[in-house]
Amino acid sequence: MKFRRSERLIDMTNYILEHPRQLISLTFFAERYGSAKSSISEDLAIIKETFEQRGIGTLQTVPGAAGGVKFHVKVSDEEARPIIDDLCGLIANPDRLLPGGYLYMTDILGDPSIVQKVGRILASAYSDAKIDVVMTVATKGIPLAYAVASQLNVPVVIVRRDSKVTEGSTVSINYVSGSTKRIQTMVLSKRSLEEGSNVLIVDDFMKAGGTVNGMISMLEEFKANVAGIAVLVEAEKIEERLVDEYLSLIKLSDVDVRDKKIKVSEGNYFRRRK
Amino acid sequence: MKFRRSERLIDMTNYILEHPRQLISLTFFAERYGSAKSSISEDLAIIKETFEQRGIGTLQTVPGAAGGVKFHVKVSDEEARPIIDDLCGLIANPDRLLPGGYLYMTDILGDPSIVQKVGRILASAYSDAKIDVVMTVATKGIPLAYAVASQLNVPVVIVRRDSKVTEGSTVSINYVSGSTKRIQTMVLSKRSLEEGSNVLIVDDFMKAGGTVNGMISMLEEFKANVAGIAVLVEAEKIEERLVDEYLSLIKLSDVDVRDKKIKVSEGNYFRRRK
Repeated sequence: MKFRRSERLIDMTNYILEHPRQLISLTFFAERYGSAKSSISEDLAIIKETFEQRGIGTLQTVPGAAGGVKFHVKVSDEEARPIIDDLCGLIANPDRLLPGGYLYMTDILGDPSIVQKVGRILASAYSDAKIDVVMTVATKGIPLAYAVASQLNVPVVIVRRDSKVTEGSTVSINYVSGSTKRIQTMVLSKRSLEEGSNVLIVDDFMKAGGTVNGMISMLEEFKANVAGIAVLVEAEKIEERLVDEYLSLIKLSDVDVRDKKIKVSEGNYFRRRK
Repeated sequence: MKFRRSERLIDMTNYILEHPRQLISLTFFAERYGSAKSSISEDLAIIKETFEQRGIGTLQTVPGAAGGVKFHVKVSDEEARPIIDDLCGLIANPDRLLPGGYLYMTDILGDPSIVQKVGRILASAYSDAKIDVVMTVATKGIPLAYAVASQLNVPVVIVRRDSKVTEGSTVSINYVSGSTKRIQTMVLSKRSLEEGSNVLIVDDFMKAGGTVNGMISMLEEFKANVAGIAVLVEAEKIEERLVDEYLSLIKLSDVDVRDKKIKVSEGNYFRRRK
């Protein structure tokens, strides 16, 4: 069966988007469509150009006999800014205020299209970095962690508050919650993380950073490396931040329970990202 | 700025894949590319044909002035079968055996590419159904629920074992675990689910169905409807199944702890799905 260029471009686009950060050889596509490698090369040049122009990502060309292309998600600042602005608007809605000054964010984190956009933005900051695993803590960070990990083509590892029979042997650590100063426990299945892994920590919310700090301690137990820390929302006005190097999309500057006002602004994403 | 057909096809493919079950008007694409609607119509016909031929999904054409196209994910049986077979092979690995006859599945559920494939298969069984929400229970079902929900373009609602301050007011129910017969509790944030919603329940594993049954009771509390139940793995050899109508990709027929043998086969997916 022969394929026209238009059909190849559509199918290749789908295939490439589904296989980020994986080397796809020219041979693979040539055989898939019964086409000459020279035609495939031309197709890929058109896809690369369009992906870059439309802010979808980049196609890295790997030369040589074993060569091919690798897709890296890249969200441009012009695309990221309105997404972050919209999120700020959503979060600033005073209906989110809960007793104790907490914010209801379940609807935002429950919307797969928002989660995927945030995942693409965060992943694009690390798409060239050496990341082997994304780590998060149950429960709220999980969807974001998967959204980032799927763009980086790495597995997700979930730290839990309690151990379960279906996790096998676990490693447990104690850590101090940054804001309430209480001692808490987190556990991770022993076989879920290999020694020496480069780990990107992802979470939905960071206050003083106690939980993130706990995950860093957990990585030490596993002799794994912190390759980055990325959160959706960071709370400002924290007396003592336990974590220094992190990326945040949104900053929660003030929650005024009495006047029902929530102040949010852009996080450090555009400044911090290299 | 004018776009060539090849560039339009690539960008449209990406856009359509990112917006499943949403009506995208011809006008939207015509303006996006500064092209005549007739050209866009031709582009869409090519995309529709390729999507159907390559088992990516279908493009439903909505006629009229307010018309356009809607993408529905459709995984063909020929594509689904090898994915399910591979998963059976992975799950049958005796290294997964844990004390008590439990199976370690964390690595499988931690792999975003597997989770997305499973999500596409399950979603394609419901892509024409009236689904407003996907519901799951923390923690292990969460990634699958998002993978299904993102293909169906609906939010995810997560039932928890315990209430948290960040969830606001909650509804709590007691239910009987099907296999251990113990009374357990689950809670759901009050504002997370609207009355009358059509809910697809998604989970990673179903034994006797106690947890799924608990979620059904929860839906009754919210006056919401069960639109479907889909699980990755069902355990066979259950004396009394609490749930009748469900879709499963994989069936766990027998776990022999002494001889370290795990028997798995295809679930009811190909039989049950309408």
